[in-house]
Amino acid sequence: MSTDLMPNRYRPGESDLPKRESELIARREAVLGASYRLQYRRPVHFVRGEGMWLYDPDGRAYLDFYNNVPCLGHCHPEVNAAMAEQAGRISANTRYLEPKLVDYAERLIETFPNELDRVVFTCTGSESNDLALRIARFASGNEGVIVSSYAYHGTSAATAAVSPNLGDAVKLSPSVRMVSLPGPAGVPEAQAADFFEAQIRSAILDLNRRGIGVAALLIDSIFSSDGVWVDPPGLIASGAAAVREAGGLVIADEVQPGFGRTGAHMWGFERHGIVPDLVTLGKPMGNGFPIGAVVGRKAPMEQFGATSRYSNTFAGNTVGIATADAVLTILQRDQIPQKALAISQHLRSGLEKIANQHSGVRATRNAGLFFGVDMGPEGAPAARRRAMALDVVNAMRDDGVLISTTGANEDTLKVRPPLVCQAEHVDLFLASLERALIKVAG
Amino acid sequence: MSTDLMPNRYRPGESDLPKRESELIARREAVLGASYRLQYRRPVHFVRGEGMWLYDPDGRAYLDFYNNVPCLGHCHPEVNAAMAEQAGRISANTRYLEPKLVDYAERLIETFPNELDRVVFTCTGSESNDLALRIARFASGNEGVIVSSYAYHGTSAATAAVSPNLGDAVKLSPSVRMVSLPGPAGVPEAQAADFFEAQIRSAILDLNRRGIGVAALLIDSIFSSDGVWVDPPGLIASGAAAVREAGGLVIADEVQPGFGRTGAHMWGFERHGIVPDLVTLGKPMGNGFPIGAVVGRKAPMEQFGATSRYSNTFAGNTVGIATADAVLTILQRDQIPQKALAISQHLRSGLEKIANQHSGVRATRNAGLFFGVDMGPEGAPAARRRAMALDVVNAMRDDGVLISTTGANEDTLKVRPPLVCQAEHVDLFLASLERALIKVAG
Repeated sequence: MSTDLMPNRYRPGESDLPKRESELIARREAVLGASYRLQYRRPVHFVRGEGMWLYDPDGRAYLDFYNNVPCLGHCHPEVNAAMAEQAGRISANTRYLEPKLVDYAERLIETFPNELDRVVFTCTGSESNDLALRIARFASGNEGVIVSSYAYHGTSAATAAVSPNLGDAVKLSPSVRMVSLPGPAGVPEAQAADFFEAQIRSAILDLNRRGIGVAALLIDSIFSSDGVWVDPPGLIASGAAAVREAGGLVIADEVQPGFGRTGAHMWGFERHGIVPDLVTLGKPMGNGFPIGAVVGRKAPMEQFGATSRYSNTFAGNTVGIATADAVLTILQRDQIPQKALAISQHLRSGLEKIANQHSGVRATRNAGLFFGVDMGPEGAPAARRRAMALDVVNAMRDDGVLISTTGANEDTLKVRPPLVCQAEHVDLFLASLERALIKVAG
Repeated sequence: MSTDLMPNRYRPGESDLPKRESELIARREAVLGASYRLQYRRPVHFVRGEGMWLYDPDGRAYLDFYNNVPCLGHCHPEVNAAMAEQAGRISANTRYLEPKLVDYAERLIETFPNELDRVVFTCTGSESNDLALRIARFASGNEGVIVSSYAYHGTSAATAAVSPNLGDAVKLSPSVRMVSLPGPAGVPEAQAADFFEAQIRSAILDLNRRGIGVAALLIDSIFSSDGVWVDPPGLIASGAAAVREAGGLVIADEVQPGFGRTGAHMWGFERHGIVPDLVTLGKPMGNGFPIGAVVGRKAPMEQFGATSRYSNTFAGNTVGIATADAVLTILQRDQIPQKALAISQHLRSGLEKIANQHSGVRATRNAGLFFGVDMGPEGAPAARRRAMALDVVNAMRDDGVLISTTGANEDTLKVRPPLVCQAEHVDLFLASLERALIKVAG
């Protein structure tokens, strides 16, 4: 694991900045303080967004190949109109009857396998995972949680405690167990599922021997913070079955892969041929409006809901629902996931072509429009690979293209454009990546 | 403590409902399930809101004397215009420079005592309290949390575990200690602070003897879920000092009293003459938009922020900031808290007049526009007082006025109108309450 937990960030004094930016940063530091880290060595400053583009105060355009929250693009007029229209009519809470809440809940559930027929709304992906853990612990009677070794699942106390990605300063729960992934461990694809299952079984054994028991396997099915380890499809199925056998629930964290990111499916878990017990939603659900959800099987959802008095003031309010409803309508009507899959193939072949020409590109992995591109030649030391990834990201930023890094060594480029990305944007991105590779690796 | 955790709710089969509502409820139950409880014996169904009023599908108006989220009234045009305008320009996240975030953070901090000079944004009050607990535990090195005996602080795993209000089904943390309040215990005001301090000192002693230590005193300074125990001002000061002496932090949960609810002050803790270490904000901050914050002293905020990698995707996004900025502008420009204080005096004297005429009103307490009105004659059994409160709330609902209940026995009317309430609304409310009392108590 890298020692710097957010390598791609601004460090005071490291870069010469224009007065406008350095003054704003000074004011920002004084009132927002150390929690608020800025991306890039030279932070970006945006005042306008539209579709795939963000604009700085001088009108310079930056191509966004990083943000998955505005999945339909920045400032989508139809989504914003739905939000504004609803805000002008009523923002009801869920303790009152309001048909839109029920209509949208039914529409959302229809996108899931039949077994998943209940939904509870939240405001953020962290709230979704936090609630899913509460439900899993309540329904199973156990405490243990199994996650991947570099997982990130949220910012609440309970989710941060099962997020090894956050590093040493954030204490892990005594009841969390981390499992290695076959990909980073160098296990061939044919043995990947067996390797993963063996890791899971060993974690279950340990949790049981300590009387903790297993409440849940909590996984992002594209393992985005571990470095985008998407293959082979089916990889997690036997491990998930082992967890259910042991009395635990399977929670699919769809904050990253959900809502068509993987192209071929609406939900990432479908790629692995499993039906989880609980599914957690967040980021792209409202194209930027704070809304999330837990979707799940009736049994654990009702067991929790009937006994624990759960309510969430803002969650499910009609404005958020109307916004999310517009997002789902557009995703389905305009076949956004299908188009994203097609465009991801264009991006994939462009990246492979670059990889063949540059020894600096070690490997490329993707599921739909979520790409991980490993930087640094085979056999290069971890620190050099990492420095190279950071150099490429910052060269591209200076060139007007936004991406960042991921993975245990943060040497994997994280490429995750809004789903409305077109071929022309892919070509601009590929040209910029090539320029950056030449600049960085020579 | 009452056995039914949400007495004022719909129970299937208890009330005859029109087909339109019963069908909507059946669909709602099928997809949202048991977590989603409806208020009132006969649920309300709203399709439009404006100022102090909510409207059902038949155009019947209901006077809202319950909702503090739309503090400036339902569907405030100026707030909504600020939200829509910003959504059309940019919804930036906090990893990019954006001046509005810094401008608003500075304006918000100016409303606090000088010692409180840092802010971190969240999306909900639960997220605010969850983060404040993380900061307090990190900064103190201790785990223990002291709360009032019927406190509610949120819906995340960590906040629910310090919320005895949620009842037996939600397990309390082994490190939480509950303290009794002087008011419900019948302690005279002159001894109230000493009583509270003694309770706190005893909790600290117990936490220290078990090696848990005290991380925080977490309190809502108007004790709204305990039954609105607001007096005497200063009540909590010596207890808070004892916590700080013992190495713990004082967290003021301002989700209920904050943003001028108490009229005389912007923040509830000011009424008690204390400066907390951390302050948590939520509900009214965005007049319905999901936004919250933790405001605090530099030392614990920086200690946490510099080491723990905290980030929250939606929190501090420019649309939420622009919305909250409009709310703060209107609160200050139109002197909403000052007007709320004046109107609260009109409401208070009306309630006192009613109390003199009806033995069913036992006591009235308020801080600004947050009122608790105890139902049932002195000496009446708890169950009878509680039934009476429930009958009054539902009679008023049928009469077109919205309130609910609070307190350990849920026999206190919770009266908490939007802050823009006018004298004419108070008169309508008082007339309805009087009709309900006559109907219920005879």
